[in-house]
Amino acid sequence: MSATAQIGVTGLAVMGRNLARNFARNGFTVAVHNRTESRTDALVEEFGGEGSFVAAHSPEEFVRSLERPRRLVVMVKAGEPTDAVIQEFAALLDEGDVIIDGGNAHFEDTRRREKELRERGIHFVGAGISGGEEGALNGPSIMPGGSSESYESLGPMLERIAAKAEDGTPCTAHIGPDGAGHFVKMVHNGIEYADMQLIAEAYDLLRTVAGYSPARIAETFRGWNTGRLDSYLIEITAEVLAHTDAATGRPFVDIVQDRAEQKGTGRWTVQIALDLGVPVSGIAEAVFARSLSGHSDLREAARGLAGPTATPLGEREAAAFADRVEQALYASKIVSYTQGFHQIRAGSEAYGWNIDLGSVASIWRAGCIIRAAFLDRIRAAYDAQPGLLSLLSDEQFAEEIGAAQDDWRSVVAEAVRQGVPTPGFAAALSYYDGLRADRLPAALTQGQRDFFGAHTYRRTDREGSFHTLWGGDRSEVEAG
Amino acid sequence: MSATAQIGVTGLAVMGRNLARNFARNGFTVAVHNRTESRTDALVEEFGGEGSFVAAHSPEEFVRSLERPRRLVVMVKAGEPTDAVIQEFAALLDEGDVIIDGGNAHFEDTRRREKELRERGIHFVGAGISGGEEGALNGPSIMPGGSSESYESLGPMLERIAAKAEDGTPCTAHIGPDGAGHFVKMVHNGIEYADMQLIAEAYDLLRTVAGYSPARIAETFRGWNTGRLDSYLIEITAEVLAHTDAATGRPFVDIVQDRAEQKGTGRWTVQIALDLGVPVSGIAEAVFARSLSGHSDLREAARGLAGPTATPLGEREAAAFADRVEQALYASKIVSYTQGFHQIRAGSEAYGWNIDLGSVASIWRAGCIIRAAFLDRIRAAYDAQPGLLSLLSDEQFAEEIGAAQDDWRSVVAEAVRQGVPTPGFAAALSYYDGLRADRLPAALTQGQRDFFGAHTYRRTDREGSFHTLWGGDRSEVEAG
Repeated sequence: MSATAQIGVTGLAVMGRNLARNFARNGFTVAVHNRTESRTDALVEEFGGEGSFVAAHSPEEFVRSLERPRRLVVMVKAGEPTDAVIQEFAALLDEGDVIIDGGNAHFEDTRRREKELRERGIHFVGAGISGGEEGALNGPSIMPGGSSESYESLGPMLERIAAKAEDGTPCTAHIGPDGAGHFVKMVHNGIEYADMQLIAEAYDLLRTVAGYSPARIAETFRGWNTGRLDSYLIEITAEVLAHTDAATGRPFVDIVQDRAEQKGTGRWTVQIALDLGVPVSGIAEAVFARSLSGHSDLREAARGLAGPTATPLGEREAAAFADRVEQALYASKIVSYTQGFHQIRAGSEAYGWNIDLGSVASIWRAGCIIRAAFLDRIRAAYDAQPGLLSLLSDEQFAEEIGAAQDDWRSVVAEAVRQGVPTPGFAAALSYYDGLRADRLPAALTQGQRDFFGAHTYRRTDREGSFHTLWGGDRSEVEAG
Repeated sequence: MSATAQIGVTGLAVMGRNLARNFARNGFTVAVHNRTESRTDALVEEFGGEGSFVAAHSPEEFVRSLERPRRLVVMVKAGEPTDAVIQEFAALLDEGDVIIDGGNAHFEDTRRREKELRERGIHFVGAGISGGEEGALNGPSIMPGGSSESYESLGPMLERIAAKAEDGTPCTAHIGPDGAGHFVKMVHNGIEYADMQLIAEAYDLLRTVAGYSPARIAETFRGWNTGRLDSYLIEITAEVLAHTDAATGRPFVDIVQDRAEQKGTGRWTVQIALDLGVPVSGIAEAVFARSLSGHSDLREAARGLAGPTATPLGEREAAAFADRVEQALYASKIVSYTQGFHQIRAGSEAYGWNIDLGSVASIWRAGCIIRAAFLDRIRAAYDAQPGLLSLLSDEQFAEEIGAAQDDWRSVVAEAVRQGVPTPGFAAALSYYDGLRADRLPAALTQGQRDFFGAHTYRRTDREGSFHTLWGGDRSEVEAG
C-alpha cells in the first residue's frame, strides 16, 4: 500500500465516521481505521461514493497509507482509551507527524500528552469539535490547539471542512499552544449550559407566570429568533416546544422527565474557573440546576415546603411580561458570555496561550451548539478593542444591558414573588450589580477574617497590610 | 532521654504552639519540636510554666521522647512541606504509632497519605482543626479521620483539649476512615464562606436600603445575636461594625478595602461538590463574590453601568425591613447548611465513611468559626432521624423556613429593584423554589439535549430511554 491519504481518522463511531466523510466530501483522500474492522468496511461500503477512502485494517496499514507529514485524527473516548490509542500510534510515527485528538479531552490531559509527544518530535493537536453528529458531517466549529507549525499543515484542511460563518469565514482557527483548543471548547460547553439554563427559565416563566401553553411559547421563541436572540438553541427550543407526543397527544415537553443529565464539561468549566479566580456564577448555577433536578429523592421530600402558588397573568399583561422576559434573557446572556470570555482570557494569561478572543467569537458563529448572531457582535467588540477587559466594558453591550435592566429586575422580582426558580437570571443580575457597585460588603468580610484569623486587611487611604488587635486594645498594627 | 511524653507537636508556628500549650495545660506531657530550634526553646522558656514540655532538638530526639504508641501531631503548611515532614518522621516510627496531620490538607492528599502509611503499619490521622489561634489554645473543634483504632488511643486526649458544647460534650469525635476528617473540615469552611457572604449581604441591605449607619447595624446584629441567629460570626460582625478607625475617626468598615481574599478551602468545597453532583450554590456564590470583589480592574471598568440608585427607607419602614432581613438571613442560612450537610452525606456515601451527621453538627457547636446555637438544632434533627435526607425535610426547619419565606421573597425583590447585589440570598431562594417545584424546566433541557446530541430522555409514563428522530419524521424510538 502506498501513501496516498492526506488525512486519517481512527475511531469510527458516529462522530469519527461523519468527520471522515466530511474530509472525503471536501476532496481529501481519507484513510479510515477502526479497532473492529467491520465498521471500517461498512463505512467504505455505505459512503464510498462520497469521496476517496482508504480502508486500513491494522494500525500499521493505516499509518503506511498516510502522506507525510502524517496527519491522524483520533476519535475515541476521552480518558484512558485516548491515551492507549495515542501510545499505539505514536510508536509507528516519525518526527514531524501530527496526531489530532478530536474528542472532549480535559485540557490538562491535552497539555500532558502534547508535552510527551513533543519530546518525541511528534505534534499533538488537541482539537475541540462542536456541532454534534450533524456538525461533524456538514461543518463543525473546530478549536485546534498545539504548535503553530502543526496548524500550517493542518489548518487549511480544517478550514475546508469547518462550518462557514455568514461572511464566509471558516469556523476554525489556531487557538494557541498545547491545551488551548480543548480549554476553549470546555468554556464553549460551559456557556452552552448557561444558555440552556437561561432558556429553561424563560420557558418556565412564560409557562407559569404568563400562563402560556408550550405551543404558544414555541411561537414566542420563534419570534425571538428573528431578533437579537437569533441562535441555534432558541431555534431548537421552539421545535421541541412545538412538538406533540404521538403516544399521548400531549405536549412533548410534558411527557419528558424533568431530570437533566450532564456529561461533565460544564462541571470542568466551573472547577477550572474556581482555580483561575473567575466568577462564572451563571455557568455554576446551570450545572447546579441540572444536578438539583436529578435528586428525585430530595425533591420528593421537599414537596410539602411552603411557597406561593403562581397565578398566571391576564392576556394583555402576559404579552408585556413576555417582552420583559426577552429582555431578562438577553441581559443574562450578555453576562454569561462576559463570564465565559473572562475565563478564556484568564486561562490564556495563566497558561501563556495568547488567545485571540475575537477569533474565538468568530469561529463560534457557525457549526457549534451556541452559534448565534450575537457572536458576531462579540467578535466585533474584540476586534475593535483587542484588549477589552470585559464584554460589559464594550460600549454597545453596556448600553444594551443598561436598556434591559429595568425589565430584567422586574422579571426576577416577579419570579421571586411567584416562587418560580430563576437561579440563572438572578445570578447574572447579582453579578451585574456586584460589578457596578461602588462599595461591596467585602470590606466587612475582610474585617471578620482579620478578627478571627488575623488575616490582615488593606486600607483605602494608605498602602500596606494592617491588623487590628481585636483581642487586645483594638489598636492597629502594620503587618509584615 | 527516656520516653515520657504522651504526645508530640512538630511545627511550632502559632497554631502548633498553641495546640502544644493546650495539651500541656490539660495535664499531658508534650514533646515539642521545630526545624528552627530557637522556636522550640522560646516556647518552653515562655510557656514552660503552663505544664510539662519536653524540648526536642532533632527528629530522633523528638521520637525517642514519645511514649508508645507514639502520637505525633504535624502542624506544618499543607502540601509538600507536610509530605516532607511525614516522610522524615515515618522513617523513625514503629508499627502502631500515630501521625496526626492537623493542617488544612486536601482530603484526597490525606487519603493518599493514609494509604501509604497504613501499608507501613503506621496510623495516619488527618484531623481538621477549626477555631484559629484562639481555638487552638483554649479549645478548638477537632475533626479527626483515620482508623477507629487510632481514635481509641488518641480520642480521649483530643476530647480533653477540645472545646466543650454548652451541655459539656467535647467538640471532637471520630469522623470516619482516611480523609473523612479533612473532608468535613473542608465543608465546614465552605459553610463558613456562605455564612460570611450572607452576613455581608444583610449588612449591605441594612446600610443601603434601610439607610443604617455601621454603629446602628452593629446594634441590630447584637439584637439578632440574642435570638435564633446567636453565633460567633454574628457576634464578631457586631464588633467589627461597632469599631471606629482611630486614624480617621470613621467607621472601621469604611476604611477597609472592599476586596475579599481567600485561602482555597471554599473553592475546594465547590469543586468537590461538583464532582459529587451536589448543588452547593450558596457556597459557590460566596466564593465567586470574593473573587469578583478582587477584580478591581473589571469593577473599575464597570463603574458606568446603568442601574438604580438605592433610596433609603424612612425610619419606620427601615425597622420593618430590618426584621425582614433577619428572616431572609435565617432562611438562607438554613439552605446553606442543607447544602453543606448534603455534601457531607454524599461524600460519606461516595467514600464509604459512614459519617454520623448529628455528630458533625454536635462538634461544630463550640470551638469553631461557625459555632452557633443553630447547630444544636441540626444535631437534634439528625439525632431524631439519622437517615434524614435533607435538613429541609426536618419538620421544624421546614416550618421555620416556610414562616420566613414571605419576608425572604420581599427582601430579595427589594434588593433586585434597588440594585443591591444579593447573590447568596437569591441563590438560596432559587434552591428552595427549585427543590419544592412540582415540575422543573429540566424537561426542556433534556428535550434540547436529545435534539442536538441524541442524548435520549426518559418519559414520565413509561420505563426506558427514548429518542425522537428530530431530523427525520419525529417519531420516537426506544434507545438501547
